[in-house]
This record gives sequence, C-alpha cells and structure tokens, in this order.
Amino acid sequence: MTSETVRDVGEFGLIAALQAALPKKVAAGHKLRVGIGDDTAVWRPPRDESILVTTDSLVEAIHFRLDWTDWRSLGHKSLAVNVSDVAAMGGVPKLATVTLGLRGTERVADLQALYRGLGALAGQQNVLVAGGDIVASPHCLAIHVTVIGTTRWRGRHLTRAGARPGDLIGVSGTLGASAAGYRLLREGPRSPRRQATTADLLIAAHLRPQPRVRLGQTLLHTGAHAAMDLSDGLLGDLPKILAASDVAACLDASAIPVAAAVRALFPDDWLDLATRGGEDYELLFTAPPDVFAKIATTAHEIDATVTVIGEVLSRSPQHPVLAMRGLDGIDHEVMPGAFDHFA
Amino acid sequence: MTSETVRDVGEFGLIAALQAALPKKVAAGHKLRVGIGDDTAVWRPPRDESILVTTDSLVEAIHFRLDWTDWRSLGHKSLAVNVSDVAAMGGVPKLATVTLGLRGTERVADLQALYRGLGALAGQQNVLVAGGDIVASPHCLAIHVTVIGTTRWRGRHLTRAGARPGDLIGVSGTLGASAAGYRLLREGPRSPRRQATTADLLIAAHLRPQPRVRLGQTLLHTGAHAAMDLSDGLLGDLPKILAASDVAACLDASAIPVAAAVRALFPDDWLDLATRGGEDYELLFTAPPDVFAKIATTAHEIDATVTVIGEVLSRSPQHPVLAMRGLDGIDHEVMPGAFDHFA
Repeated sequence: MTSETVRDVGEFGLIAALQAALPKKVAAGHKLRVGIGDDTAVWRPPRDESILVTTDSLVEAIHFRLDWTDWRSLGHKSLAVNVSDVAAMGGVPKLATVTLGLRGTERVADLQALYRGLGALAGQQNVLVAGGDIVASPHCLAIHVTVIGTTRWRGRHLTRAGARPGDLIGVSGTLGASAAGYRLLREGPRSPRRQATTADLLIAAHLRPQPRVRLGQTLLHTGAHAAMDLSDGLLGDLPKILAASDVAACLDASAIPVAAAVRALFPDDWLDLATRGGEDYELLFTAPPDVFAKIATTAHEIDATVTVIGEVLSRSPQHPVLAMRGLDGIDHEVMPGAFDHFA
Repeated sequence: MTSETVRDVGEFGLIAALQAALPKKVAAGHKLRVGIGDDTAVWRPPRDESILVTTDSLVEAIHFRLDWTDWRSLGHKSLAVNVSDVAAMGGVPKLATVTLGLRGTERVADLQALYRGLGALAGQQNVLVAGGDIVASPHCLAIHVTVIGTTRWRGRHLTRAGARPGDLIGVSGTLGASAAGYRLLREGPRSPRRQATTADLLIAAHLRPQPRVRLGQTLLHTGAHAAMDLSDGLLGDLPKILAASDVAACLDASAIPVAAAVRALFPDDWLDLATRGGEDYELLFTAPPDVFAKIATTAHEIDATVTVIGEVLSRSPQHPVLAMRGLDGIDHEVMPGAFDHFA
C-alpha cells in the first residue's frame, strides 16, 4: 500500500494501474477485438439479439460520501446500479465503460480498490470492462458507467408499459434496507442504533446493492407483463409503470416485504423507509396470477424471493390511480412523487 | 426565452424540455424499441457488424468555460469528440447516451440550446439520442457522452496497431486552428489578434470541431493500415500509433498543413500550435503509397483533404522512434509526450 496519488503517476500511469486491478476475465483486451487503449472498443454482438444501453453516474456528495463508503463498495455500486437497469429489462449485461472524474489528489491504491470492487461484480456477471475515460473533476469525484447488454430472446424484453388490469404486482427481496442503512450512516457511528448487530447488514444493503439479473431473465421468460428496478422508492417508481401502461393500482401495506432488522431499528417509520426510501435495486413487476405462480417457483430455484404486494386495476374516475391499504386497513390515495434531484 | 432554471422545472420537467429540443429524427423513441424514459434503450444492431463503443466527457473549467462557448457549440462539441473516435475506427456512429451533471441553477433554455447543438450534429450524422441520465453536480457542469457505432465491413475496422514501415503518414484537414482559437479565447476579447477577420474562424474550429466520419470510412474501405483521431496534438498522438504498431517515423515540418490564418496570427509559434496544440479532431493515418493515392482521390470527392506529412520506418537503434525535419531542414528527435490531465 503506497500513498502515490493520481498526480504522481499521471493519466497513463493510472490507466495501467487500473487495468492491473481488474480480474483478467473482466479486462476487455483478450475478448474484445480492441479494448482499453484504442479509440473505441470493438465488440461482436450475438446474432438476433437486441442491444440494451444504460448509463448512470455516482457523484460525490450527491450519491456517496467517502467517509461513509469504502472504495471497493463504491466500485461495486457504480456498476451495480447500471446492471440493475439491464436486469429490469430481462437482459444480460455484457460490456461496461467507466469514466472517472478525478481531482488528481486521490490515492492510486484507493482507485485500484474501486476497480477491484467493480471488477468483482463484473466477473460475477460476466461483464467486460471495455475502457472509458479519465477526466479532471476539480471539485468532486464522479464515476460514470455505461453498460451494454443483450436480450437472449430474439429481441423480446420487459418494459414499464405492459401492465394490464388483473395483474398482480410483485417485488423481489425486501424493501427499505438500503434507506435504513443510509439513515444509520447519517446518524453517525455514535448513534445507539449503530450498536445493533444488524446495523452493518443494513449499511451493506445501501453500499453494495445486488442487481437481480437472473430474476429479470426469469421474469422475461415466464411472461411477466412489465418490470423496472426500484431506485426512487416503491411509491416513486410504481407510478412510472402505471403511467407508461395507462393503468391504476392498489397496494397492500401489510404485504410489503420489509426485513426484520428495519422494523426493529425503525419501529416508527419502517413503512416509510420501505415505500419511499429508494435505492433498493429490487425488481418491481406485474404478471397475471398464473404467471406469478411460475415466477415464484423459479425464483425459489435461483435463491430469489418474490412477494405479491398489490394488484393492477383499470383506470376509472371512481378511484385514484394509486391507492394503498394502510396498516390500519383503510385505503389511502397515494400522491405519486419520485425523488427529484433538483426539487 | 424564459429564465426558468433546472430547479424550477425539476428533473422530470427538464427531461421533457430536452427531449422537445431534439430534432424528431434524432429523438430515439420512434426508432428504438424503447427510448428515453425506460430503464434502458433497446436497439437491434445490423447483422454481421461489429459494435464500437466510446465515451468522452466535457467538464467545466477543464474542457470548456461558459464565458467562452455558447451552449449550442458546447452541445455540438460534446457529441463531436465522441463521434470522432468512431470515425477513427472507420465506423458509423449510431446511438448516443448523454449524462448531464448539473448545478440546478442552469437555465432550461440554455440546456435546450445545448441539446439543439447536439441534436443538429446527431441529425447530420444519423445518430439517435437514446436517453441518458441527469445528476446533480454541485460545483461544475459536466457532459458525459457515450457513442455506439458499427463497422459496415464485416467486422473490419481501423486501429492504431497496423502501421508498417514504408507507409506514408497522412493527416486530414489542417492542424493548429483549434489551438489557435483556444489561444485567442484565452487572450480575451480586447486582444489585438481578436480584431482580425479570421479570429472567429479559428475560435469556431475550437468550439465546433467537425468529426471526419466519411473520411474514416474511406480510410477503412481503401485499406489504410492504421488510424486515430487527433485530440492530444500530432506529437502527442503519433507516438501512440508508433507504440501500438512497434514502428518508428519521421515527419516533415514543412509538409504539415496549417491554415493561413494560424500562420498569420501566430507567426512565431504556428508550428507549435499545429504539432502540440491538440483538439484538432482530424484523422491521423498511415497507408502504403498506392493506397494513399486512392484515399486522396476519394477524399476529394467527399470534400475532405489529406496531406502526406511523413513516413513510417522500422525501429532501429540507429535512429530515434520519432524524428521531425524542422523548417531549418535539420532532423530533430521528438520527445513524445501526450497531454496529461494530471501532469
């Protein structure tokens, strides 16, 4: 471990150090026809598949704080949030490009740890890192990742627009753990809640979300009607499916899967964390009841869980676009409102 | 023209405003199966073609200043520098994703102008804008673009690695105009040089570089051996071809094409601007003499110019990897050194 900085080794020294930090199967050189170091990466996509493209950035002070995250987790998350978008379409992630915006004072060893975290997830998901760009960013560190994926099923893919009345609304995993972890980080290391044995688990859910790639493919293959990944919170994201599909929905608050640790540490607002917290990176989807049963069976085989949390309805002037039956058993209209970076 | 800011309209209002600013043929919705507004863009690539991927960012205070550029030019340039990378491989640009890092205080009308500039070049090059991301960037505006292209010729493409001894070294257009324009911007509006009628032309070369897409395809089809685009200056970039191809080269300073305006306004250092200035976004390539003749003929038909500026040699302990015959007729060894953002 040395204390060399980006400025000490220069742009080209840094590129070499970062490439060295990637697992061999992930560094693109040997699988792409041209990898890191030429003008573009060159890749031969499989025949008869569609290409998925998504891009998502993490900016210091907005999306992360360096005193809250370790570098490896930061690398993991910067790729995970993009892979999650591909998962939401039922796709298979294939290539990633990474642009780092750096002050120049960063330690090379830290950036290598970032690449190790990114590389470990890339290896697990068979994603090649196909180069990118390094630019000066004088005020804050930023990581911009673009992921390219494919859909294996002759151009079929999931969108937000396919939900139909009668569909069940499902969600993978549990909700609210990431938001709870974020709350714990904000409360600081001396918070009494941080002493709980489960605190680290919740913080890990925030720092290292797991994209649901296999489940996304299961949703596509079994015939789910619509899907998206949850980044802005259930009540921020579900309205996007309802708008794209021109349908209404009702949710059942008591059915929403929330980890016991979230309920225990946040007895007053666990439901708020689970419905409005954001950054879950679980899959939200709709499917007819018979398809849902198949999804649940297959999910079990790939170590995923899915839970029914509501139902899709037709739009009508008689009922709101989105209602939620509260823990009190009473239906409440939900005012949609996704997280807005500039609100 | 209103003075509404990003914060006034919010993230989703801004996305709608930016989509509206794109020409219809460029906004991806109608040509991509899923465009702006779902988790990923979905695109069916042509059969038997390779996919090219490149990503390049413009960061305020590093790559541009808002008091030097208009917004339209900034949008043009953010796409142009990426399209230029695809051109250097002999490829055809197809899709772009755009991530804006915004303070929130930007005027919506200015960002629409940025999208108009980007959209105009996209329209000219038949590139679809396939969505992207908007993130808060509290200290400086940043534009991160990823471009995906294809090569039409069954997977063939140009790289930096194909140069062979005996090849002529060619360059498109003229060099140094962008660096001269940058110098004029730095000198400020009261500089005597800014009064010259040609000053605006040079500034335009800096603010609105033209990627050489058709010429790149000509280079590929006629059989050029190696190519790259000039972003770090001739003497910064040529060594990358020499290293990738394991060859040496000599250049002839008197042959380097330099616009008359550059020579006239910078009589003492026009050669320095042309060889070390950077941001020309012209193509640098090598080809055997008979191929070069074909390239010159075809270039003429597509309104491009190419000039021989030197020759590729084998490496030998007897002569330097890169030499340049100066205006004095004497050969000088050139110390390679590309622009390093952190040097």
